[in-house]
Amino acid sequence: MDVRAAVAHKAGAPLTIETVQLEGPKAFEVLVEIKATGICHTDAFTLSGDDPEGLFPAILGHEGAGIVREVGPGVTSVKPGDHVIPLYTPECRQCEYCLNPKTNLCQSIRVTQGKGLMPDGSSRFSLNGKPVLHYMGTSTFANFTVLPEIAVAKVREDAPFDKICYIGCGVTTGIGAVVNTAKVEPGSNVVVFGLGGIGLNVIQGARLVGADKIIGVDLNPSKRELAESFGMTHFVNPAEVEGDLVPYLVDLTGGGADYSFECIGNTTTMRQALECCHKGWGESIIIGVAGAGQEISTRPFQLVTGRVWRGSAFGGARGRTDVPKIVDWYMDGKISIDPMITHTMPLEEINTAFDLMHEGKSIRSVVTF
Amino acid sequence: MDVRAAVAHKAGAPLTIETVQLEGPKAFEVLVEIKATGICHTDAFTLSGDDPEGLFPAILGHEGAGIVREVGPGVTSVKPGDHVIPLYTPECRQCEYCLNPKTNLCQSIRVTQGKGLMPDGSSRFSLNGKPVLHYMGTSTFANFTVLPEIAVAKVREDAPFDKICYIGCGVTTGIGAVVNTAKVEPGSNVVVFGLGGIGLNVIQGARLVGADKIIGVDLNPSKRELAESFGMTHFVNPAEVEGDLVPYLVDLTGGGADYSFECIGNTTTMRQALECCHKGWGESIIIGVAGAGQEISTRPFQLVTGRVWRGSAFGGARGRTDVPKIVDWYMDGKISIDPMITHTMPLEEINTAFDLMHEGKSIRSVVTF
Repeated sequence: MDVRAAVAHKAGAPLTIETVQLEGPKAFEVLVEIKATGICHTDAFTLSGDDPEGLFPAILGHEGAGIVREVGPGVTSVKPGDHVIPLYTPECRQCEYCLNPKTNLCQSIRVTQGKGLMPDGSSRFSLNGKPVLHYMGTSTFANFTVLPEIAVAKVREDAPFDKICYIGCGVTTGIGAVVNTAKVEPGSNVVVFGLGGIGLNVIQGARLVGADKIIGVDLNPSKRELAESFGMTHFVNPAEVEGDLVPYLVDLTGGGADYSFECIGNTTTMRQALECCHKGWGESIIIGVAGAGQEISTRPFQLVTGRVWRGSAFGGARGRTDVPKIVDWYMDGKISIDPMITHTMPLEEINTAFDLMHEGKSIRSVVTF
Repeated sequence: MDVRAAVAHKAGAPLTIETVQLEGPKAFEVLVEIKATGICHTDAFTLSGDDPEGLFPAILGHEGAGIVREVGPGVTSVKPGDHVIPLYTPECRQCEYCLNPKTNLCQSIRVTQGKGLMPDGSSRFSLNGKPVLHYMGTSTFANFTVLPEIAVAKVREDAPFDKICYIGCGVTTGIGAVVNTAKVEPGSNVVVFGLGGIGLNVIQGARLVGADKIIGVDLNPSKRELAESFGMTHFVNPAEVEGDLVPYLVDLTGGGADYSFECIGNTTTMRQALECCHKGWGESIIIGVAGAGQEISTRPFQLVTGRVWRGSAFGGARGRTDVPKIVDWYMDGKISIDPMITHTMPLEEINTAFDLMHEGKSIRSVVTF
């Protein structure tokens, strides 16, 4: 079938809107009509060429929402008409990882997904008879896409696509890091480095679970107002702190953060995030993605005296199980998404979404089809 | 009173056996007759002058066992005649740390202990009228010592002093890191870096809790036999591994260690210990003490993909609560100590114990009084 897609032909170039060919779903695959997709830093990272695993030509996009239109043989968990959110971290419920309660990193289709291919080793997309690669197993920058059955989360039908698409990545990554990875307890003091889309969701996750102090750290004071509306109780601009940031944060939290979250991808702030944690029990969670080859460092004494360093991917969420719950939280008003969707546009203007991101003018842009 | 002690007058010099003066216990303090004491790397580290917090003159020693001979006003938890193990990590059961189940790092007397003083800010030891400092709050290289009540664990009276003294540091540090810090589950695969006294206790801790593979890593093949007797199932000599050690260990564990323990104090092996952990859930615990100013590093990707980096001090044990249990485990035959006590000697020969340690000829030397 013909589908309308934004194609990334090569690194560093804008996406081009084209009509590409899409094969229908094979066994255990589903065809999804994408109704909305967010544009995330990870898409920009790959498009920039800095992602060492980036492959071209490809159809990017991993933060979508849509409707199942057709299912291949063997599919039992969804049917045409079901509303779904594509999952770049699938949940097969069969592999060694899915069967270990400590992780959400289902590995069942990782190898082919990393190559831009469906689990059978081929692509469903083509242009002029030549394959175009999938991306993160999702390729939501197209009005139709094919996904493995294990890579879609069925969600309620009254939830608006142009908002819940954000649950496909940013919302779940931030809130999940609080709820699933850190398991923040009520009364905890939390420090969040970086008040972009992920940081805001960490903040509202911390509010959701009853954190006490929720301290946001960002060099940009214009982030303050929105972050406060999501639950931030204290704003710290490192440029305005006299002396070192870490002791300032330790003092502000009355001894150190119970939990800190790095939502920037900067190895210097990753170290600060660990070291501002409370002696004896403070845990720091890395969410941001650092540049290729960059390393984090600290003195081992920081760990021996009780701090814990961990990371979180997709918020520690098992997508088919957890994403529908987060959609419920949104519909029930427990969490907020609308104020973070700062721009909405048609597919034809998707390059504008990247510009707005790079200029720091958007929290999240969403393309609707 | 007159007591016989090994005094550290200055860094880098041998200890001298002297008669020093000891004041009796003040309020909430106890006088303990030390019957046996182990000699630990930490004593050697301080004596060498490499410990930036080392103070002189002092009476070193922190791994003892003895009998309460006198108690000061207000002491209620022990009485003369009780057998006790001194605790360099006390347990006041009142401070913010003791009341937080995530840590064992009681801070109630940390400041004075770090200065070599009793909680009232003075020393009980003196020589020729001049104060001699306490060390780690314990000073077990003397046949009598004074300790805060919160820094002694009452233990059963049928346990031999010359063995259970080792529970005052090494045994608890190793076994506790497995049981309290890592909380290793039955069936886990465990990698232990360094087969000295701590490593052997990690190994028997792993055996105690039902670990599956227990892999010891050491450059010295002569460590193998004893380690196997404590439960090591696989020995890896990095010098005999072709290629990189980390992928070798990942392969040997069928995907990576569920838990790894660094018992050397080397920042390179700390990194290897983290990176040989299983994607998704492997946890690495730093026990060894690195040199002043040294740093650990890794790529944050290691954490974002699910590995956890933490540390352990005194095996995460709350001394007054946990040490008596470990004495029971020894008396019940659940753990072994005797084969690790390779040398026993009188106080007059204590400098020989340091020599044996530096020459790698001892696992643990014990001085009996």
